[in-house]
Amino acid sequence: MLIKDEHFTTIWLDESNQVIKIIDQRFLPFRLVIETIHSSAEMCLAISEMHLRGAGLIGVAAAWGIYLACKESTDWDQLQLRAEELMNTRPTAINLQNAVDKMLDHLQRVDANHRLEESQRLAQMLSQQDIDACKSIGLHGAEILRTLSKKKNGQTINVLTHCNAGWLAFVDYGSALAPVYEFFNHGYPVHVYVDETRPRNQGARLTAWELAMQGVPHTLIVDNAGGHLMQKEMIDLVIVGADRVSRKGDVANKIGTYLKALAAFDNKIPFYVAFPSSTFDASISDGLSQIPIEARHADEVLYMQGIKEGEEFTFRIAPEATPALNFGFDVTPARLISGYITEFGAFDANQIDSDEWLAMFE
Amino acid sequence: MLIKDEHFTTIWLDESNQVIKIIDQRFLPFRLVIETIHSSAEMCLAISEMHLRGAGLIGVAAAWGIYLACKESTDWDQLQLRAEELMNTRPTAINLQNAVDKMLDHLQRVDANHRLEESQRLAQMLSQQDIDACKSIGLHGAEILRTLSKKKNGQTINVLTHCNAGWLAFVDYGSALAPVYEFFNHGYPVHVYVDETRPRNQGARLTAWELAMQGVPHTLIVDNAGGHLMQKEMIDLVIVGADRVSRKGDVANKIGTYLKALAAFDNKIPFYVAFPSSTFDASISDGLSQIPIEARHADEVLYMQGIKEGEEFTFRIAPEATPALNFGFDVTPARLISGYITEFGAFDANQIDSDEWLAMFE
Repeated sequence: MLIKDEHFTTIWLDESNQVIKIIDQRFLPFRLVIETIHSSAEMCLAISEMHLRGAGLIGVAAAWGIYLACKESTDWDQLQLRAEELMNTRPTAINLQNAVDKMLDHLQRVDANHRLEESQRLAQMLSQQDIDACKSIGLHGAEILRTLSKKKNGQTINVLTHCNAGWLAFVDYGSALAPVYEFFNHGYPVHVYVDETRPRNQGARLTAWELAMQGVPHTLIVDNAGGHLMQKEMIDLVIVGADRVSRKGDVANKIGTYLKALAAFDNKIPFYVAFPSSTFDASISDGLSQIPIEARHADEVLYMQGIKEGEEFTFRIAPEATPALNFGFDVTPARLISGYITEFGAFDANQIDSDEWLAMFE
Repeated sequence: MLIKDEHFTTIWLDESNQVIKIIDQRFLPFRLVIETIHSSAEMCLAISEMHLRGAGLIGVAAAWGIYLACKESTDWDQLQLRAEELMNTRPTAINLQNAVDKMLDHLQRVDANHRLEESQRLAQMLSQQDIDACKSIGLHGAEILRTLSKKKNGQTINVLTHCNAGWLAFVDYGSALAPVYEFFNHGYPVHVYVDETRPRNQGARLTAWELAMQGVPHTLIVDNAGGHLMQKEMIDLVIVGADRVSRKGDVANKIGTYLKALAAFDNKIPFYVAFPSSTFDASISDGLSQIPIEARHADEVLYMQGIKEGEEFTFRIAPEATPALNFGFDVTPARLISGYITEFGAFDANQIDSDEWLAMFE
């Protein structure tokens, strides 16, 4: 997508130096910082410390981490250790595990001398698959927006989204925002209400920024406001991304998603989850009891980053003595979800857990 | 209540100088600032700019504003103008209107020469009524906590609260937190999960601070987290305050309350609203369509206050070009509320809108 009219992806191979380049998202929206990742250990840090984040992107980043590990050693046991480290950086998004599994599955059948070039080819392929899946999600999701647009006689469609499931959460295009971009680029009027998404403010910092860069009209709201906006008929549909989708359609996504799903259900507003098949976990049925939820450091709640006169600061926003608890995700049960948008098409809630649905992800 | 072991109320008459003193809550938790209010115009500013806030407190503050107006002029028309200005400072909490109405009702029957002393007496009385009502709410609410405590065999009761409905929102004791203080002071184990409450962070800044000052165990969470905590059975009950309660029990309260009520309902967790009768509006039946919701400045969303190395700063936390929308309240429909705690007792949802319920508030 575009940053000041220049095309970017969130991660890419610098072929001449055999290193990985990423947008270091910790500095957005205040500064565009490109970081060079030289080793699988650096990639582990970049994932766990959230230099990059987003289900699709951390999957592809882990694949590139395996490529870097192949550069570091031709020893299979070493590679497995590095893979283990990459897999343990973050627990909730299944994309990470899916990508590492795919890399290892293939590489174990490859001669040690060819592992580096094969790992490069495969990581490149997973990166391209992520891009293609997001493009397809955009096409299928835009269809839903066009149907709503017809119902509203072409009036502006108001979308609510939570966290960032735009292009910054993938290699390009995004999941939840891909339909918005597709719809907008065809000249339809659309406006996005952006949930701030405490504690890390991915909505305020990333979604607002990427929508502004593409010229999509949007308004920032606090996470508390979505329910009221739905009660007042200011939202036509909700689209969010996912970090893991269970076989029966339960969705782990950024903490607070469940609250918006409840409000959408209560107000009969369509609530869609957009995700590529790399986010699907066929091994899990009940999301609430089976998806591991990441607990992150309390400081993410107690401190905040901001800008004053061009300078960035981190400051404390709570009393000195106050402790905090910080879960990264929650699980929205399938019963609250209207439909799912994948690279294979859009699916109604009643199509979930069918043979057709499961076959699609094999 | 206590601030570093010294007893305070949030507002009081300085009798020797005939001025009003308030805790200027804009500086909490970083600094304790006492502001002197000399005129009804200064009181208007203190209310609208939220030097003080909270349904009960702004009612009493408006009563003291009328007292200051009586000092300024003995002219009845002038007094009515000042009353109008006080009433227009904030639209949602009915306490403001109720207090000003009571003051004017009484003062119009008083000789102009006696208005000042009568206004002082009446404002003092409304202040005392606020204190007494909150004390009673504490007693009635603690009964509910004791019942839960028995069910849990004396294990710690985990309360979730949103915004600040503690003593800082009233003259003393508070509404939602009064039962917690009463229960805690009798030696029962209790722990409060405090919703941060964006955009003004009254939870992180005021509730966490006042709980710490009384020694009540508490943990700060982001507004997004409550639903997940309920799903994981970490919350025994929710208690919130109110800015206006309709005759059929709909509740206007800080934006985001509705989302927590939905989550409590979905997880079968008791959801209580604590309020003194000064917050009741018998003239309104359907809260959602009839209670006016205050829209505040977008900067409250786009900027944030914090502390760094002992110094306070205001920072921008969103991209430069991003617009924001900022509603102060939402309405929770009565169907989601388990019960109400007033100075007259605790009431089940099915007792609402009965003759007995309405008679109580007359």
